[in-house]
Amino acid sequence: MNIAFIGLGTMGAPMARNLLKAGFKVTVHNRTREKEEELASEGASRAASPKEAAQGADVVITNVSDTPDVEAVILGDEGAIHGMKSGSVLIDVSTISPIATKAIAEKLAEKGIEMLDAPVSGGSEGAQKGTLSIMVGGKAEVLEKVKAVLEAMGKSITHVGEIGSGQVTKAINQTILAGIYSSVAEGMVLGMAAGVDIYAALQAVSGGAAGCWVLDNRAKNMIEDDYPLGFRTKLFLKDLGIALETSKALGVAMPVAAYVEQLGTSLVKRGLGDEDVSNLARIVREQSGLANTAD
Amino acid sequence: MNIAFIGLGTMGAPMARNLLKAGFKVTVHNRTREKEEELASEGASRAASPKEAAQGADVVITNVSDTPDVEAVILGDEGAIHGMKSGSVLIDVSTISPIATKAIAEKLAEKGIEMLDAPVSGGSEGAQKGTLSIMVGGKAEVLEKVKAVLEAMGKSITHVGEIGSGQVTKAINQTILAGIYSSVAEGMVLGMAAGVDIYAALQAVSGGAAGCWVLDNRAKNMIEDDYPLGFRTKLFLKDLGIALETSKALGVAMPVAAYVEQLGTSLVKRGLGDEDVSNLARIVREQSGLANTAD
Repeated sequence: MNIAFIGLGTMGAPMARNLLKAGFKVTVHNRTREKEEELASEGASRAASPKEAAQGADVVITNVSDTPDVEAVILGDEGAIHGMKSGSVLIDVSTISPIATKAIAEKLAEKGIEMLDAPVSGGSEGAQKGTLSIMVGGKAEVLEKVKAVLEAMGKSITHVGEIGSGQVTKAINQTILAGIYSSVAEGMVLGMAAGVDIYAALQAVSGGAAGCWVLDNRAKNMIEDDYPLGFRTKLFLKDLGIALETSKALGVAMPVAAYVEQLGTSLVKRGLGDEDVSNLARIVREQSGLANTAD
Repeated sequence: MNIAFIGLGTMGAPMARNLLKAGFKVTVHNRTREKEEELASEGASRAASPKEAAQGADVVITNVSDTPDVEAVILGDEGAIHGMKSGSVLIDVSTISPIATKAIAEKLAEKGIEMLDAPVSGGSEGAQKGTLSIMVGGKAEVLEKVKAVLEAMGKSITHVGEIGSGQVTKAINQTILAGIYSSVAEGMVLGMAAGVDIYAALQAVSGGAAGCWVLDNRAKNMIEDDYPLGFRTKLFLKDLGIALETSKALGVAMPVAAYVEQLGTSLVKRGLGDEDVSNLARIVREQSGLANTAD
């Protein structure tokens, strides 16, 4: 199976590498062409544009930053759509708008090209180890056809509905995370202000009904007011913006997610967008007069 | 060791039973005296008042509903303080105000009585099986002295700081839960409104960074709009009120917790306070025009 892989960022490069390791024939393209070199030395072909990469491919994978980038690499003048053959499949593993996703899929369908939206979670470590969780929207029979491709990049592949549903599921994930981050920050700041042994309190609550990944993996950042990556606040904010845009289009009120987006906007404006998103605790600390020890 | 156990509700009765099973000599008292009978048939002595129960006890345990109840059974005319001897220990396992707890401890200290605040989590099942998590505030050496008593009722006993810290830790727990419940509800409603396969989406997000006990154990209630107990909304609201009262006293801003308290207040007013607290999803559904299927 011939695969074109477009977008070799922190996530894309290791994902393309895992396809090579799994024995697929892979052609790569990246806007900054130098990023193609390492994968070329490992056996990938290179292409000068998404269109060129897509020529002869059975599957085209796109992995770029945001909705306009995906639109450009698929539908733009040099976009993949102009190189893809009828019956081939486009898999977008970026995190973008589910509404835009449906529109792109319609354009592709006009040329007989199938699309899956397949955003991932699990971070750069998951991308390297091939242990990503992949949430897939689109036709079940199309997913079946390309499942081996996804299995080379991820450990858990879940079909969540028709086209756009993968993006909605990612939006659900980020919506829940928003509330968890903010309330874990509120809880930790409450405990610190009250003078409890906060590490002991953290341990006591972690095993019960409040137990969550954020308590286990990020509460310590909040206590120590130090926010190493992780997942950048500005990227989380982009994802949360997609979730809120989707909720507005559907008429779903998400006040907690909207509140957390406001906090994140302020952090990015202050130049803190490249810290881990657990830095939402900065604002909760400030609101409560708890000194930011790391500044 | 002689133990007096005051308050034989859903949690108290099985906790007192576990003390009997562990071989302690237990005297029980409950405002509604009939509730003492079953434990008496299992070997407990009965007392007509907290004061009488406390006479000769090395440890007095109080387990009642709210701050004024704890004040009454300890400091009231027939309160335990009038029966307790110097050098004995009062353990309050209720969930009440940490500020009131400190005031009660000061009154007890004047008579040479030590106090630990030791709220629990783990529900009635944990109380029956003796697997509660117990968060203990007070002097470490006092905890050491009565540890066997707590170990007869709970599995995880964590010392979290000076007197009142157990209650603060419970408040942290409920603060975090408030945010998790509301954001899981927002996420589930977003997914349902978008028409994804919500059970598949739930599975996809549960294993990642948004993973939490509420997703694993309560999201299904929200999807099905059916809220069997669990933990009553009105009791959760009482606990969250304590957390917010504490945060106000400390000058800690907790807008997410305050927002969720407002939702809960509305549910209780509408007669829905005896459902499981996952019924916060009712409001998120209503705000989004998603029909309440169970009504």
